[in-house]
Amino acid sequence: MIEIERKFLVNSMAFKAEAHKSYAIKQGFLNSAKERTVRVRLKDEAGFLTVKGQSTANGLSRFEWEKSISTAEAEALLALCEPGIIDKVRYEVICGKHVYEIDEFFGDNEGLVVAEVELNAENESYTKPAWLGEEVTGDLKYYNSILSKTPYKLWSI
Amino acid sequence: MIEIERKFLVNSMAFKAEAHKSYAIKQGFLNSAKERTVRVRLKDEAGFLTVKGQSTANGLSRFEWEKSISTAEAEALLALCEPGIIDKVRYEVICGKHVYEIDEFFGDNEGLVVAEVELNAENESYTKPAWLGEEVTGDLKYYNSILSKTPYKLWSI
Repeated sequence: MIEIERKFLVNSMAFKAEAHKSYAIKQGFLNSAKERTVRVRLKDEAGFLTVKGQSTANGLSRFEWEKSISTAEAEALLALCEPGIIDKVRYEVICGKHVYEIDEFFGDNEGLVVAEVELNAENESYTKPAWLGEEVTGDLKYYNSILSKTPYKLWSI
Repeated sequence: MIEIERKFLVNSMAFKAEAHKSYAIKQGFLNSAKERTVRVRLKDEAGFLTVKGQSTANGLSRFEWEKSISTAEAEALLALCEPGIIDKVRYEVICGKHVYEIDEFFGDNEGLVVAEVELNAENESYTKPAWLGEEVTGDLKYYNSILSKTPYKLWSI
């Protein structure tokens, strides 16, 4: 399937009070190339293997294929991943018809907080909550596959 | 799981008369790095996604994880793979307690025929059929992940 997503920075932690759920995510990449990203994810007690293709020129749409795997499988595959495992906590906030997913990063990406909203069409309208900051859709440095190699703590150097 | 395999060249096509089955295989790589190979395979009407780790120093053992996927999923993922899709026909020959898998390659690897036998232990004994040639276990150039980038037709150049 094709995923359509917009990505934003977050200008306050007020989103936490609006979240209806949150969970820990640990993820690594079996390939972090933008043409064929292969991601292993452990999301609380669930495992996922996800393959993503290259984004369209505007950064909005991307082929995405995902398969559930066991936590034991996810752990075995994480051990094979490229260096740069990502640790984050994801919060979900319902806003109108959409769900914002806000990632608060830890480890080498501590200090970075990014929100994403998935749309059904590239021109679909959506409500912007007050804590939503600058749009960074399509900016490669915010891709998790890039953050695993060039984490936030290295950006200011 | 860990796979233990020995690989051989084949010195005659006599194996075809002993095969109890054969099927076409089309495969590509979402990552062909030896530390974390991610393979997409279409095997007649079945699809597979397989992740392999690095081989042990003697080339015999390798972590391998495999998941069944649909043919539609396999075709979508093959389209994302690195250039160098491999086409081959696999023959299976029962020999004593073991099954030899013999791959006859086509396309850019035409002329190459390689046999593999899977063992339960690195020191397990096995019967060598008459058509089995030189052992090439651990020789990287016979890895399918390498053949996809440096196919047989380029070897003599």
